[in-house]
Amino acid sequence: MMGSEDAEPPRLLTVAACQLGPVHLADSREEVLKRMFALLDHAAKEGAKLAVFPELAFTTFFPRYLIDGQDLGQYFDIEDPSKGGIEQSPNVKPLFDYARSLGIDIYVGYAERSVQKDGSHIDYNSSVYYSAQANEVVGKYRKVHLPGTVEPRTAPGAFQQLEKRYFRNGDLGFTAFRAPELVEGALKKSSSTDDTVMTAGRGDPIIGMLICNDRRWPEAWRVYGLQGMEIMCCGYNTTAFATTSEGHMVDLSPEAAEEEVLLHHKLSCQGNSYMNGCFSINVAKTGAEDGHPLVGGTMIVHPLGHIIKEAETKDDEVVVATIDLADCRRPKTTVFAFEKHRRPEHYHPILERTGVIEPELL
Amino acid sequence: MMGSEDAEPPRLLTVAACQLGPVHLADSREEVLKRMFALLDHAAKEGAKLAVFPELAFTTFFPRYLIDGQDLGQYFDIEDPSKGGIEQSPNVKPLFDYARSLGIDIYVGYAERSVQKDGSHIDYNSSVYYSAQANEVVGKYRKVHLPGTVEPRTAPGAFQQLEKRYFRNGDLGFTAFRAPELVEGALKKSSSTDDTVMTAGRGDPIIGMLICNDRRWPEAWRVYGLQGMEIMCCGYNTTAFATTSEGHMVDLSPEAAEEEVLLHHKLSCQGNSYMNGCFSINVAKTGAEDGHPLVGGTMIVHPLGHIIKEAETKDDEVVVATIDLADCRRPKTTVFAFEKHRRPEHYHPILERTGVIEPELL
Repeated sequence: MMGSEDAEPPRLLTVAACQLGPVHLADSREEVLKRMFALLDHAAKEGAKLAVFPELAFTTFFPRYLIDGQDLGQYFDIEDPSKGGIEQSPNVKPLFDYARSLGIDIYVGYAERSVQKDGSHIDYNSSVYYSAQANEVVGKYRKVHLPGTVEPRTAPGAFQQLEKRYFRNGDLGFTAFRAPELVEGALKKSSSTDDTVMTAGRGDPIIGMLICNDRRWPEAWRVYGLQGMEIMCCGYNTTAFATTSEGHMVDLSPEAAEEEVLLHHKLSCQGNSYMNGCFSINVAKTGAEDGHPLVGGTMIVHPLGHIIKEAETKDDEVVVATIDLADCRRPKTTVFAFEKHRRPEHYHPILERTGVIEPELL
Repeated sequence: MMGSEDAEPPRLLTVAACQLGPVHLADSREEVLKRMFALLDHAAKEGAKLAVFPELAFTTFFPRYLIDGQDLGQYFDIEDPSKGGIEQSPNVKPLFDYARSLGIDIYVGYAERSVQKDGSHIDYNSSVYYSAQANEVVGKYRKVHLPGTVEPRTAPGAFQQLEKRYFRNGDLGFTAFRAPELVEGALKKSSSTDDTVMTAGRGDPIIGMLICNDRRWPEAWRVYGLQGMEIMCCGYNTTAFATTSEGHMVDLSPEAAEEEVLLHHKLSCQGNSYMNGCFSINVAKTGAEDGHPLVGGTMIVHPLGHIIKEAETKDDEVVVATIDLADCRRPKTTVFAFEKHRRPEHYHPILERTGVIEPELL
């Protein structure tokens, strides 16, 4: 039998992982938006109130190409703080408007061109959380863990991964936030007390956002976990094969290579969801973009680490599940009751060093 | 094809996970030692040079019982620095002597009663790495993440987990070390340069040690990972069911409960091995100790996260595999090339807070 302290009234929420099949170089923004609308229609029909889209959802995964500055602009959405946020972008606004009409909150990834006061710009690989309930952006994230290289790999036949060239590392950290009015009966501010254990997880849902490669970094999940995160949203574009540090494909059959990539994806998302007692909604852009294969693996993961539901295709597909946020209670009050069990006095190397310092040779 | 930078001469090592079946309250130390010798014989016959035993290997898992101070002493090994280390304990010395005769290094967990200068003692849940090659203890670890409670749970029918009562939290941190002469052709000190990337992983193997519940804490793995760890050794005693914070068994069938516990074990060991590019040797004390069921799940995990080999029984069993430490190279130079990709400037909450601080209620 469950102990009374672990019992909590259900806080039910229907969520949709909106997987996108390939977006080719020649595909127009309008075509992609139309596909996203169709996914939202499907999500709405199944009662979803939160829809998660992939990383860089509106275009092909352009960091696989070496593109010069002039052509690069078309992949970005301009965000000029003097004119409002990303919700003002003509490319993105229709998605938010449509979501608003359906009453569905949105996580979506996009390439952000952030206009600075002096007219210059800084580019980020970003995601945004638009609350349809509140009709405003309530969360913003800029990818911290950019993979790849700044300079194109020069080895013959090397694959390119130029995120470090096109984007600056995110400067917003890992900031959890609450999604207003997403579940019924959430505690409100007036009911707040100083006792975080008593109120933990019983207000509006606590959301975290990551992008693609971030999901392999337990530090990122833990910073969110330390804010009581209940739902991690994470979109990705992940090649269906691994490469060496020179950018060569690892010598495996296509099937074995894809299986390995999926194992790593699952270990990262399931393992870190478990170790932080949170749901995660992990959403792929998948299939072959102009011949470049991306893995699928879109899935909704439970705070106890198992997969609740996963995609069956490598094309546009909606994976819907009704989750109970009260299920975060057991891990967060037992094995992962951080305040009882963590020992930060032994964790200092995590901050003190970036790379490896090995024990001396004998 | 593999890029040349990822190619490294093989550094082969045969390792043995020495799983123990139940040790009952009535079982004598001599009986347990005899079983451990048999496991070592088996490991030697298969060519192993490293054998990993479980946590608290020499006795039953006594923290499940409320035991008064006088009776508690029998479970501990006394370590008096004025008389030498654990290798002098009459209970433990025979194991090291036998390992020495077979040329097998040992990781083994034990309850340490550490004698202080004033004659008092401090108790730890410890493990030790005995190098048969060097005939000395080259690594020592005291469990940092103690589960359970200090005071016995009072709810009717509650299960006890009294590690926090019987042991002090480890004070040695997570200190990786090298195991001398375990592989052929390892770089030696005279060849050392300041370039850690060039020498990484090419000296004597870099070992980390954890104990049981520690394996669920990515911080612990990461601190070792930041020291270039190539092999994690981890023994455990894990109940085959989960409990609520009051100590009641979670309401699942025995089969479903065990399946859940094994999933968490695997996500922890496979996920953290993958995210740190290291092998791990995870070794259970398993089966029912006086009716109290412990899970199995002894397994050797690859730095790419897959299980190389796992136990088939819940009894004394040796799981042997020949591993190639050069397999750590690909993850450590690509996705998990820490010096290129980690962003510690965003990780500070990991050290700054122990428990959760939630975003304010709306």
